[in-house]
Amino acid sequence: MSKQVAIVLSGCGVQDGSEIYETTLTLLRLDQLGIAYRCFAPDIAHQEVIDHHSGEAVEETRNVLVESARLARGEISPLDELSASDFDALILPGGFGAAKNLSNYATAKSEMEVHEDLAELLIEFHDARKPIGLMCIAPVLVPKVLGPGIAVTIGTDPEVCGCISAMGGLHRSCAVDDIVVDFEHRLVTTPAYMLATRISEAALGINKLVDRIDEMMDVNT
Amino acid sequence: MSKQVAIVLSGCGVQDGSEIYETTLTLLRLDQLGIAYRCFAPDIAHQEVIDHHSGEAVEETRNVLVESARLARGEISPLDELSASDFDALILPGGFGAAKNLSNYATAKSEMEVHEDLAELLIEFHDARKPIGLMCIAPVLVPKVLGPGIAVTIGTDPEVCGCISAMGGLHRSCAVDDIVVDFEHRLVTTPAYMLATRISEAALGINKLVDRIDEMMDVNT
Repeated sequence: MSKQVAIVLSGCGVQDGSEIYETTLTLLRLDQLGIAYRCFAPDIAHQEVIDHHSGEAVEETRNVLVESARLARGEISPLDELSASDFDALILPGGFGAAKNLSNYATAKSEMEVHEDLAELLIEFHDARKPIGLMCIAPVLVPKVLGPGIAVTIGTDPEVCGCISAMGGLHRSCAVDDIVVDFEHRLVTTPAYMLATRISEAALGINKLVDRIDEMMDVNT
Repeated sequence: MSKQVAIVLSGCGVQDGSEIYETTLTLLRLDQLGIAYRCFAPDIAHQEVIDHHSGEAVEETRNVLVESARLARGEISPLDELSASDFDALILPGGFGAAKNLSNYATAKSEMEVHEDLAELLIEFHDARKPIGLMCIAPVLVPKVLGPGIAVTIGTDPEVCGCISAMGGLHRSCAVDDIVVDFEHRLVTTPAYMLATRISEAALGINKLVDRIDEMMDVNT
């Protein structure tokens, strides 16, 4: 039976949801490696809706699960149906949805709170020593949820690096085509669109992340 | 100076807009080949909005340009700003947006009408002998706009094949990992999610389509 990876989405679009290319490239690499995946998203209202053409917030209400379903071609389940025992690894793509819907990092910074179900799941995967991959802005969740002393990267952004440090995280600067691996905590991160200026750049780091998660699933430690 | 490809989008999500993976995989391959691209979409209302979780139509109004901007990370222009003289090729990903927003194929079938600006652009690229790529359901536009006798594929769906034939098109059955090339008309099509059951399958045909468009841009005929 193939390996099973759970993907947690946060909407559909970089400004208020999951980054579309990061998610698609993750699914592509998993599928190319013969790894099965299932997408999940919380059944909650968007924190805000951004017109991606104008860049402005608009008076509109959208649901994170319903919008994430666009990115999953309808093949998605509510986050409260995700059980760590059914999967071998967890991956969170980035996009502002991670900082607006899955947490309130975008406004609260180091005082942020993380969606309760997601926090519990991260702890369950971590406690079960199942590998976790996070990209773009999503690694800010790590020190808040999994505690201090875990190495992550969000690239080089000084403000975000500072927040991660303020929460007790270990931030490592990283190029767009590379990953940071915390072997002890079985956690892999890559900057993706925190640094990428081209989709092929993002793909390099994301492919490395997925490949490393794949390797980690082979090794029980 | 690098080659320039125009991509026409029709929203963001397979059921009422552009198919997200088809679009992303197209942009990835173009970028990997060092080909520049620009996304365009018509500034019109969605024909309908589908809740991609339930699969049901919802009472909501969305704009095709604004939703397509999600898929282009904001880097998009209105379709009426696209001039064939500025680009070396044109690519249309699929998704029901091609049959609902760029045309009314979904309801009118062989009696369909095509968005006027898009029809003019297809004729301009075709007349200039600049290669055109279309995937998934988008090839149904070809016989209607460019006239009879041009070879295309949408895979194997009997109803759609029949409509293409009824409009004077030459439908060729094609596997998901392959393309149909009309050399005379410099037109390349691939079934993508008309047949794909996995994202890596769709990628095989889409990569071949982009690679062939790239080769065609090298040869002026």
